[in-house]
Amino acid sequence: MSYNSFGHLFRVTTWGESHGPAIGCVVDGCPPRLPLTEADIQPFLDQRRPGQSAFTTQRKEPDAVRILSGVFEGQTTGTPISLLIENTDQRSRDYGDIAQTYRPGHADLTYDLKYGIRDYRGGGRSSARETACRVAAGAVARQVLGQGVRIRGALVQLGPHKIDRSRWDWDEVTRNPFFCPDAACVPEWEEYLAGIRKAGLSIGAVIEVVAEGVPPGLGAPVYGKLDSDLAAALMSINAVKGVEIGDGFASAALTGLENADPLSMQDGEITFGANHAGGILGGISSGQPIVARFAVKPTSSMLAPVPSVTRDGQNKDVITKGRHDPCVGIRAVPVGEAMMACVLADHLLRHRGQVG
Amino acid sequence: MSYNSFGHLFRVTTWGESHGPAIGCVVDGCPPRLPLTEADIQPFLDQRRPGQSAFTTQRKEPDAVRILSGVFEGQTTGTPISLLIENTDQRSRDYGDIAQTYRPGHADLTYDLKYGIRDYRGGGRSSARETACRVAAGAVARQVLGQGVRIRGALVQLGPHKIDRSRWDWDEVTRNPFFCPDAACVPEWEEYLAGIRKAGLSIGAVIEVVAEGVPPGLGAPVYGKLDSDLAAALMSINAVKGVEIGDGFASAALTGLENADPLSMQDGEITFGANHAGGILGGISSGQPIVARFAVKPTSSMLAPVPSVTRDGQNKDVITKGRHDPCVGIRAVPVGEAMMACVLADHLLRHRGQVG
Amino acid sequence: MSYNSFGHLFRVTTWGESHGPAIGCVVDGCPPRLPLTEADIQPFLDQRRPGQSAFTTQRKEPDAVRILSGVFEGQTTGTPISLLIENTDQRSRDYGDIAQTYRPGHADLTYDLKYGIRDYRGGGRSSARETACRVAAGAVARQVLGQGVRIRGALVQLGPHKIDRSRWDWDEVTRNPFFCPDAACVPEWEEYLAGIRKAGLSIGAVIEVVAEGVPPGLGAPVYGKLDSDLAAALMSINAVKGVEIGDGFASAALTGLENADPLSMQDGEITFGANHAGGILGGISSGQPIVARFAVKPTSSMLAPVPSVTRDGQNKDVITKGRHDPCVGIRAVPVGEAMMACVLADHLLRHRGQVG
Amino acid sequence: MSYNSFGHLFRVTTWGESHGPAIGCVVDGCPPRLPLTEADIQPFLDQRRPGQSAFTTQRKEPDAVRILSGVFEGQTTGTPISLLIENTDQRSRDYGDIAQTYRPGHADLTYDLKYGIRDYRGGGRSSARETACRVAAGAVARQVLGQGVRIRGALVQLGPHKIDRSRWDWDEVTRNPFFCPDAACVPEWEEYLAGIRKAGLSIGAVIEVVAEGVPPGLGAPVYGKLDSDLAAALMSINAVKGVEIGDGFASAALTGLENADPLSMQDGEITFGANHAGGILGGISSGQPIVARFAVKPTSSMLAPVPSVTRDGQNKDVITKGRHDPCVGIRAVPVGEAMMACVLADHLLRHRGQVG
Repeated sequence: MSYNSFGHLFRVTTWGESHGPAIGCVVDGCPPRLPLTEADIQPFLDQRRPGQSAFTTQRKEPDAVRILSGVFEGQTTGTPISLLIENTDQRSRDYGDIAQTYRPGHADLTYDLKYGIRDYRGGGRSSARETACRVAAGAVARQVLGQGVRIRGALVQLGPHKIDRSRWDWDEVTRNPFFCPDAACVPEWEEYLAGIRKAGLSIGAVIEVVAEGVPPGLGAPVYGKLDSDLAAALMSINAVKGVEIGDGFASAALTGLENADPLSMQDGEITFGANHAGGILGGISSGQPIVARFAVKPTSSMLAPVPSVTRDGQNKDVITKGRHDPCVGIRAVPVGEAMMACVLADHLLRHRGQVG
Repeated sequence: MSYNSFGHLFRVTTWGESHGPAIGCVVDGCPPRLPLTEADIQPFLDQRRPGQSAFTTQRKEPDAVRILSGVFEGQTTGTPISLLIENTDQRSRDYGDIAQTYRPGHADLTYDLKYGIRDYRGGGRSSARETACRVAAGAVARQVLGQGVRIRGALVQLGPHKIDRSRWDWDEVTRNPFFCPDAACVPEWEEYLAGIRKAGLSIGAVIEVVAEGVPPGLGAPVYGKLDSDLAAALMSINAVKGVEIGDGFASAALTGLENADPLSMQDGEITFGANHAGGILGGISSGQPIVARFAVKPTSSMLAPVPSVTRDGQNKDVITKGRHDPCVGIRAVPVGEAMMACVLADHLLRHRGQVG
Repeated sequence: MSYNSFGHLFRVTTWGESHGPAIGCVVDGCPPRLPLTEADIQPFLDQRRPGQSAFTTQRKEPDAVRILSGVFEGQTTGTPISLLIENTDQRSRDYGDIAQTYRPGHADLTYDLKYGIRDYRGGGRSSARETACRVAAGAVARQVLGQGVRIRGALVQLGPHKIDRSRWDWDEVTRNPFFCPDAACVPEWEEYLAGIRKAGLSIGAVIEVVAEGVPPGLGAPVYGKLDSDLAAALMSINAVKGVEIGDGFASAALTGLENADPLSMQDGEITFGANHAGGILGGISSGQPIVARFAVKPTSSMLAPVPSVTRDGQNKDVITKGRHDPCVGIRAVPVGEAMMACVLADHLLRHRGQVG
Repeated sequence: MSYNSFGHLFRVTTWGESHGPAIGCVVDGCPPRLPLTEADIQPFLDQRRPGQSAFTTQRKEPDAVRILSGVFEGQTTGTPISLLIENTDQRSRDYGDIAQTYRPGHADLTYDLKYGIRDYRGGGRSSARETACRVAAGAVARQVLGQGVRIRGALVQLGPHKIDRSRWDWDEVTRNPFFCPDAACVPEWEEYLAGIRKAGLSIGAVIEVVAEGVPPGLGAPVYGKLDSDLAAALMSINAVKGVEIGDGFASAALTGLENADPLSMQDGEITFGANHAGGILGGISSGQPIVARFAVKPTSSMLAPVPSVTRDGQNKDVITKGRHDPCVGIRAVPVGEAMMACVLADHLLRHRGQVG
């Protein structure tokens, strides 16, 4: 029971603050003899890396990962893999405003209420910088899952603007700065988000993550359900306020007939006529693609002033200067993929443990 | 790491199938010297009990709970509390159709894919009957939380029909068979659900659970977040496909300004101008009411035929006769409350452990 | 993190007090499709059962186990197995003396110091009766391990009297009331223990448990070591004060040369010239027999008076009447075997999970 | 369930190999606002550091610890504390002999049997170098326990030579290179160990750790017993083959009367007339000093040749050149103290969590 770990057989522990010397994670329980080098991890970190477009924070971090243990001659040894990422751009600056004033909607208030201590520098442990460690761990998880499992994510809603799912094109995701699968949305979103940024505001988003090739049988009733663990994993990402599997909240409005995924035999295989369930039935993977979505709220760090209070109990409007993403949901796409990968890798090992 | 346990310091393990001799749970870690008798638990079970209205299954189960251990002279001893509920109405009947044919959308397929074994009787371990144990454990959790914490749930959407939140009346919840807080909806829902039942269909629902009086500081970054644990707990309930905290998915469409809960000092206390966050910031309770919602899909057990396959690989339409709820979401209301209670009790003890 | 659970993939949770209506356990994580009926469990319980010889407590408990869940048509389903044993001989009697006076060396004092509550009836949760649940769980673990793994225990020391290891005969163990492998000791032990009992005293013992046929590779560095988990499991048995693996404390006096188990190739297999290590190297099984020993102190429940204090702070000698074993170590033999079986089953699944 | 973590509320995860760039650990769950700097940790590492006398390995490692996270302005923040120790003396050398030949009694064989991979350099993850991380974590644990709890360890047996307990002097422990509390033994041990080293041999030892000032009530029945967790923690230290609490194995030979720790009221306090129990009754601390002992076997790394086999299945005697401790038990003293500190800190928080 660790506050900063998740997973059971494939277990990830992260540590570090945005303004300390480094952040990192320990990946324990990884099977031995899997190929692993920094080059297997770095591309995923690069996707999440700040400063890559006008629509993400201008903080410049190379986010270069180092493997400190658990790998020998390019192979995992079965012992803990320690990954370290140095913080290089800890710009010394004036935190004046937010050093003493809480940001409404930010964790700075509740950290202080809980721990009685205030690390005002860049969010401390609550900074989204922690998610770089998840992405690194996710890259290791992908090695566990192997080539047969493909995990991809996309932004399906930016603020009030949703994609048209009939235009979904996975190839488009890598061509625009939004991880948007609908090319027609991109110019619209660019203009919209430029406006948000200019206004000193921030905006929310919805991310969808799809895992294909997941074998049936992963997940366990009733408190080790695959969707239960996915929900926890995705909800643990900064600023996430909702999680759905398959049709999610829309399924509440459906009848059992509308929501059913009919079965039939095709070439001797059980085949599904639809995937309302998002690939999970009774908490166990069915062999269909696993589909999860999560909603990211707009960040509370923005230029627009909000009524707030200081640590010593004075009313005071707060403005967050700094370098912040107008839509933190964008960079949450690779994070969501990583969490999916870690949960699946854990359940793959757990299933193998119990059922063989 | 138990598949059938949840919680850490306040830890619940459930066991049992719908058609075995009994179901039950073990509640471990409960603080000593709390008052506890069967009478503290039974009323919550009675709320969830089947057969109470035309809108729930007609299976008749008294669901009488027995405390087998952990209580001495009406007080908890600090040792494990074993709760047992006998299954009395295991009607011997013809499972002919579903004994060999999978129900699309039901866990019977994935249980078989995972374990290679098929307990066709009433869903076996995947039956919603298991949730009675959650409700019993939730009653114990309420003793841990004490009188200062109030947890209530309500059905806020039945199929496509949402309540009008401006008419929310908690007293109304106990007056109708839907746990509906909007009196104006009740006749409409009665007619609608009667139609669904008559058509041999089923329908989904959305439940909201609110916890008031929760002290600030519960929950821990970053993988022991209160909302992360709530999401796992609610998603583990049968048929749940989505979970939201506070504004949930709606927050994706908001700007940071619209989503902010402004702070001000009132009588020397930090006061919130809104509760978009649902009482949780950075995974830690803020002192505001905790607000969670979850979506329940329509059950796959219905009279309407759906294309399916048999265990030996034949195409065959399936009809589920039996006694089933047309809307399983209704009886999920006390279950949702119970999961909220258990998660909060666990975090109360965890917080006390770390911070004192 | 449950106080009353152990194991990870094969996980056992026990509950119940000696004087409540029943005791029981939940075995979670058991692989599916293993044969299991009450008849697979009962023989092990019968070995531990009280009242079988003059040298164990005269409490008469049939200790009949019931399987309440997790088994369908004689096979495990992969879901939690609930086992229940009713307490039938809860003789209503006069606890006068020990109801208010602590027994020096007994847990009654520390339970009260910890929980502030006193269940004086027969030791409550601290009663050795809890170990019946371990034995039941151990029988399930043996099904997981299969026929290839053989686990046997023996009493190797009764009070100051040690066996002569050169006379070790496993067949003898089942022929005498001490689980003693050295036939020559039996008459001597009978006379000695009769004297202890007549004097109203109690005496300690040392138990050895050996597991043969354990595959190499079980256990994991560095905090999931097989010997580390065995030590925890054996030390958790009532009254145990010491645990050894292989040569144990004797190895402290040896040189590296004396302690080495030389290796050689025999018929293409690595073969060991000795087993000082007790089958575990670096926390991982080597393929040799696993050998563990544990020391059981004399019970504090005896007729001989000991200076003590009452709950309200008066000096008072205490005498424990009741029906107690003069040597609780004897009935600890099947308990030790069961703990070995549970630890090995857990590690078998964990190893399979990580390494495949 | 992490193979490389221990503890629950105070949880330590270690990583790293002896010949990688660094080793380290993550301490999670530490209460906030405790004073902590590198200077609180370094002195304990210095006690364990190699190269300090003729009787420990001549490997020169400064073992300088860095705090990478979880501390802000000299205080713990409640978030994970990452500690890092660089490996500086990874002397490039000829591993010829042990690169391909197993050392009888060493983990190199079982690692290979388990993982199918062989990191021959200095023992890899099985190296005692890992224990530096335990010592660092133990220093943090001491801050949690506070000044009122005093934890000290000593070597009570070197090979066949035991101390005379009547001459026990804690001050002497820091004056000799053996952590020996009996000054009269020191010259004798010096001569004896010099002989062992000269003969290219190694020798075992027994360490005793005593914790004074531990409040009553720590530990929980029945699988969270304080002695059960201590046994696991001490048994997890490299080369440990036995663990005792209080009188340990000697208690097996005692009658209940001889083993009883009589109680009496002194100045309104319950007072113990002896401490055979080693401060733990029924798995819960009694308020008396906690006394634990553990046996360390002689290391298998020595100059004396032992019959062995190569990785490719040839018989071959093996000699371990390298720089090894003739008695690894000596440097296990601060490690044993650290494990005691970590277990107590965890139980302190767990007790506070459940009981308040």
